[in-house]
Amino acid sequence: MAGKLYGIGVGPGDPELLTLKAVRIIRECGVILVPGEDYRQSVAYRIARQAVPELDGKLVAGVPVPMTRNQAERDAAHRQTAVRVMDLLDRGEQVGFLNLGDVTVYASCLYIHRLVAKQGYETELVSGVPSFCAAAARLGTGLAEDGQQLHILPQPEQIREGLKLPGTKVIMKMGRNMGQVKQWLKESGHQVHMVERCGMPGERLYGSADAIREDASYYSLLIVRENGESSQGMPEPV
Amino acid sequence: MAGKLYGIGVGPGDPELLTLKAVRIIRECGVILVPGEDYRQSVAYRIARQAVPELDGKLVAGVPVPMTRNQAERDAAHRQTAVRVMDLLDRGEQVGFLNLGDVTVYASCLYIHRLVAKQGYETELVSGVPSFCAAAARLGTGLAEDGQQLHILPQPEQIREGLKLPGTKVIMKMGRNMGQVKQWLKESGHQVHMVERCGMPGERLYGSADAIREDASYYSLLIVRENGESSQGMPEPV
Repeated sequence: MAGKLYGIGVGPGDPELLTLKAVRIIRECGVILVPGEDYRQSVAYRIARQAVPELDGKLVAGVPVPMTRNQAERDAAHRQTAVRVMDLLDRGEQVGFLNLGDVTVYASCLYIHRLVAKQGYETELVSGVPSFCAAAARLGTGLAEDGQQLHILPQPEQIREGLKLPGTKVIMKMGRNMGQVKQWLKESGHQVHMVERCGMPGERLYGSADAIREDASYYSLLIVRENGESSQGMPEPV
Repeated sequence: MAGKLYGIGVGPGDPELLTLKAVRIIRECGVILVPGEDYRQSVAYRIARQAVPELDGKLVAGVPVPMTRNQAERDAAHRQTAVRVMDLLDRGEQVGFLNLGDVTVYASCLYIHRLVAKQGYETELVSGVPSFCAAAARLGTGLAEDGQQLHILPQPEQIREGLKLPGTKVIMKMGRNMGQVKQWLKESGHQVHMVERCGMPGERLYGSADAIREDASYYSLLIVRENGESSQGMPEPV
């Protein structure tokens, strides 16, 4: 009987934010795959390893996650990983694919999950806490209340239009564009908070657009509020 | 020494989706508050009770959550609960306030958290899996990939404009407006999936706007995709 593929969200950084289900499924899987060539360098692996020391007794392997925008190259890498996964499933292995944060929001495991599911294999997505929820909690504040809208914007070219939307805006994955984004935010006059490396070593909180470092980590997340919204309970700018 | 207030997300329904941290903090709190007059009727309590049977040995109480749109009435109820919480904290109790889903997205505990934090008490928000992530996982699909935007729309009057936004739209809290929302969705021609009571008894999946029951539960969540997006890996309409 073929095994089953689990896409497993390990949460944003704090190992205690793994769910009970994630811990159980990781324990039950014989093979664990993590994004990145060297699994020991993988952020998702390091988080899970702290919550589930039994990982040491398992077959763990890194899988390539092409950082290129070349779609053909990416598709080829995903197909290659899917073939590898299906080979393991054919041998009856239960395979877990670890993913930083949640498995349904900008998750590497989705591509593999889709390809494998399409071939008729049994698959399951195991939810994790997404980074934007953890960042807001770390700031001691809500993302949205009552009827407020919440918008997640993952690309620099979406920011200027996106800032006009009502409700709260979460800006992710800015990387090298942080300088430009900082400028737009300052011009907009919006209330801005940022969490860098939430729940990880080197975590840092920012209380205004001015304070943001342009060379901040890839694992940085901005929370932008409409002007005039309450910031009660938010920490002072750092 | 005064105690600390914890806002605790218990996830969307499946008790296994509590985080390790939520379980630990619930165990460490002497007093647990849950939304609703009768705590035994509280959905958040029932979920947590299955994951943490030790709840039976704790002081558990329901707190009123006014369902009115009358702001003064709501504020008064929140202030009353905050006073009660601060009295417990003054007596050195660790107090946990359970919340369905995550604590930063449309969470009852935020109001109390803010009032108590403002008075200088120590507070912490403990993240949980939000319902929209769990619903997408239940459908075996992603909410957003690569550069796709994600928009959370919690009010009927936001739907018609919101459906024009690029990327994925999550529609929540429709309740009695489901009939009207269903009509708008049908007119829009978008690809629609819905999960009713995700991870709870009576869970049901819907694969099209046509299939949606107008009297669906309050715990229903719609996922709307841009036309032409892939639905590979999504279950067939039911």
